[in-house]
Amino acid sequence: MQRIHVHELPQHEGERVRVAGWLHLQRRLSRLTFLLLRDCTGMVQVIVENPGLIAEVASLQPESVLEVEASVVGATQAPGGVELHEPIVRVLSTAEAPPIDLRRPALKEQLSTQLDHAPVSLRHPRRRAVFALAAASIAGFRASLDGLGFTEIQTPKIVGSATESGADVFVLDYFGRPAYLAQSPQFYKQTMVGVFERVYETGPVFRAEPHDTPRHLAEYVSLDAEVGFVHDHFDVMRFARESVAGMVDGVRTRADAAVGLLELQLPEVPEEIPVVHFSQAQQLIEAGTGDRVCGEPDLAPAHERWIGQWARREHGSDFVFVAGYPMVKRPFYTHPDPARPEFSNSFDLLFRGLELMTGGQRLHRYEDSVAALAARGERPEAYVGYLEAFRHGMPPHGGFAIGLERWVARLVEAANIRETTLFPRDRTRLAP
Amino acid sequence: MQRIHVHELPQHEGERVRVAGWLHLQRRLSRLTFLLLRDCTGMVQVIVENPGLIAEVASLQPESVLEVEASVVGATQAPGGVELHEPIVRVLSTAEAPPIDLRRPALKEQLSTQLDHAPVSLRHPRRRAVFALAAASIAGFRASLDGLGFTEIQTPKIVGSATESGADVFVLDYFGRPAYLAQSPQFYKQTMVGVFERVYETGPVFRAEPHDTPRHLAEYVSLDAEVGFVHDHFDVMRFARESVAGMVDGVRTRADAAVGLLELQLPEVPEEIPVVHFSQAQQLIEAGTGDRVCGEPDLAPAHERWIGQWARREHGSDFVFVAGYPMVKRPFYTHPDPARPEFSNSFDLLFRGLELMTGGQRLHRYEDSVAALAARGERPEAYVGYLEAFRHGMPPHGGFAIGLERWVARLVEAANIRETTLFPRDRTRLAP
Repeated sequence: MQRIHVHELPQHEGERVRVAGWLHLQRRLSRLTFLLLRDCTGMVQVIVENPGLIAEVASLQPESVLEVEASVVGATQAPGGVELHEPIVRVLSTAEAPPIDLRRPALKEQLSTQLDHAPVSLRHPRRRAVFALAAASIAGFRASLDGLGFTEIQTPKIVGSATESGADVFVLDYFGRPAYLAQSPQFYKQTMVGVFERVYETGPVFRAEPHDTPRHLAEYVSLDAEVGFVHDHFDVMRFARESVAGMVDGVRTRADAAVGLLELQLPEVPEEIPVVHFSQAQQLIEAGTGDRVCGEPDLAPAHERWIGQWARREHGSDFVFVAGYPMVKRPFYTHPDPARPEFSNSFDLLFRGLELMTGGQRLHRYEDSVAALAARGERPEAYVGYLEAFRHGMPPHGGFAIGLERWVARLVEAANIRETTLFPRDRTRLAP
Repeated sequence: MQRIHVHELPQHEGERVRVAGWLHLQRRLSRLTFLLLRDCTGMVQVIVENPGLIAEVASLQPESVLEVEASVVGATQAPGGVELHEPIVRVLSTAEAPPIDLRRPALKEQLSTQLDHAPVSLRHPRRRAVFALAAASIAGFRASLDGLGFTEIQTPKIVGSATESGADVFVLDYFGRPAYLAQSPQFYKQTMVGVFERVYETGPVFRAEPHDTPRHLAEYVSLDAEVGFVHDHFDVMRFARESVAGMVDGVRTRADAAVGLLELQLPEVPEEIPVVHFSQAQQLIEAGTGDRVCGEPDLAPAHERWIGQWARREHGSDFVFVAGYPMVKRPFYTHPDPARPEFSNSFDLLFRGLELMTGGQRLHRYEDSVAALAARGERPEAYVGYLEAFRHGMPPHGGFAIGLERWVARLVEAANIRETTLFPRDRTRLAP
């Protein structure tokens, strides 16, 4: 008999079926035992009346893996409207007493305990739902860009120079010489604009992040895109809008069960996400809060939240672009605003008042890149591989990057980004 | 005027249009200059008759980036049936003399020169086609498994113990202590079978590979899948077949232009890929070649090729599974054949006589894993994170892994796997 999944049971009322999964919990009454069996699609209650079988299953710990052959019986009060009667139970794997109590509607253990025991805690339906959202988001990101003529690329994570920021880079022993873990695919995705015009990559990036905060990880998944033949950063923002809309669509169409379980309110992505210039944002903040911020080179998190509320109030949008950040706070490859060169053609996308994405137009002329490096006291020789693309014709281009874990954390309102990472890595955590 | 792509030009015959791209080559006649403009969709010939413009463009190096406004004129002998007349040319970026001659139908430079100048050599249409195949293959892999209820996962690449093979692992400085780059997501994908039952991951893996051969890389992209509630490795092979069929479908539907340009003969994936047991394969090889191989623990490459020819001849298939490899050559987590425990429930998939994929059923009971480690002289304490999943109930399961670059190399009959890697990493190569 072929195994079926729990969500298929209602179609088999009145039949004998085989299901398999984990013993989520058992409840013992005087002459009955209820087994709650969990598979990746849901849970079903198994009624055990046979005294011999009651005695047999009594010793089973939660998370034992069972195969159950039984009759599907309608039961209006049961989840899914069915339960299983007259079971034959076969134990596929036994289990020790679990370190995490998966039977509660939500996990009660401290986050560090949950992470220490991730192989078990991740089995909780609410934890599974979080990572179903992540999978759906990444699929939606890819689908939206596939539809716009982008090509997916795979660029190296081991790199020969620690150039992009210098600090916070992991060093490894590469056949006896130093090499580094890529902090982003920035240089490679720009290079690949010269090849495919429009590219994206979804993959790990690495930061030797000295901060131990709820927002920082040593390794995370970056959703990166880069596009050629743009006029300026407003063109890039249109692609950024499409990719975020694709992520929301991906969640809506591929992870509706997770959205329901977590009782999420999915955001609407407006056709035109409101854009506010950095200096205009500062004026709004000064007028609205009384805080003196004009002239500062960046926005404080509290002021990003204020701008998020402003966008909600004035534009009815969960999303708002802040564009034109001062050049001093942006990396060397950032394209300046031709009209006001102290400001940049770059942007952040705020989602519900929190930074979700950073992007912008890049320099595309070789001599501009060399001059920008020199102005920051950097030696162009250290960037020879990157600069080769620019010596041989690069179109005006730009791109953006989204941290997958950060996006999911915003969506589920997780207090700590570790809650949206399967096996997080930080200053102190390297296992499991 | 909105830029259009070259492949859209035939729909605009008789109109003024704007295109943009790279100057692939220019040919000067006495009173005319032909510019061949390349974008990511194709090439178009631009006819320059204006003496001033002829003089202006004469100084442009190949790979200069141009925007061209011109009239679309039918020209039966031209590629796509159109060419561009009366152009207005704007130079977006100039270029230096290229280190690679992209104008030839195929690159003539040595592979090492091509790789040294990857930012330029990758722009060649034949090189682009190779990586269009890679993108289509990975998309097809994901689509086939999405359709079978698999969940995509993202597991860490920095790991705390060098357990899986010990040798050939990269060591990095992780906040003052050693950590390692993951050689595969093996342990994590197995752990995640306990969470989602069916999972896949597409991402980089790292091998400090001491061999400098045409088949080895220090970093490559692994397409990994793992599935729970299998009966044995034959169930796993059915999923493996679906994923390979998905990859071929992906190439067929998403990269038909690349297939045409490279004149590839795509393989048919039979509904049932032939399976031959390892010991039976040895008997066939002995009978067919006279070589004494029975009793050897593995197949030599020449004998894999022979089995590939046998499968082609006897079953009309480019693919053949060799199943039941001796346990001694398989990792500790391999499930033995219950009937003949010196053989394993594992398999290789050969494609045109070359190993494409390795997979098998895994141990799923905690005590079996502990015993298997002990039998190999390993301390179970070093595997505590991995083993936790098994202490708390794991179903019978198995999985497989495909090297993306190796697959594409087989498809295009590349002599060196570096030809199917954007920016390869090996013992000596760390840039670009």
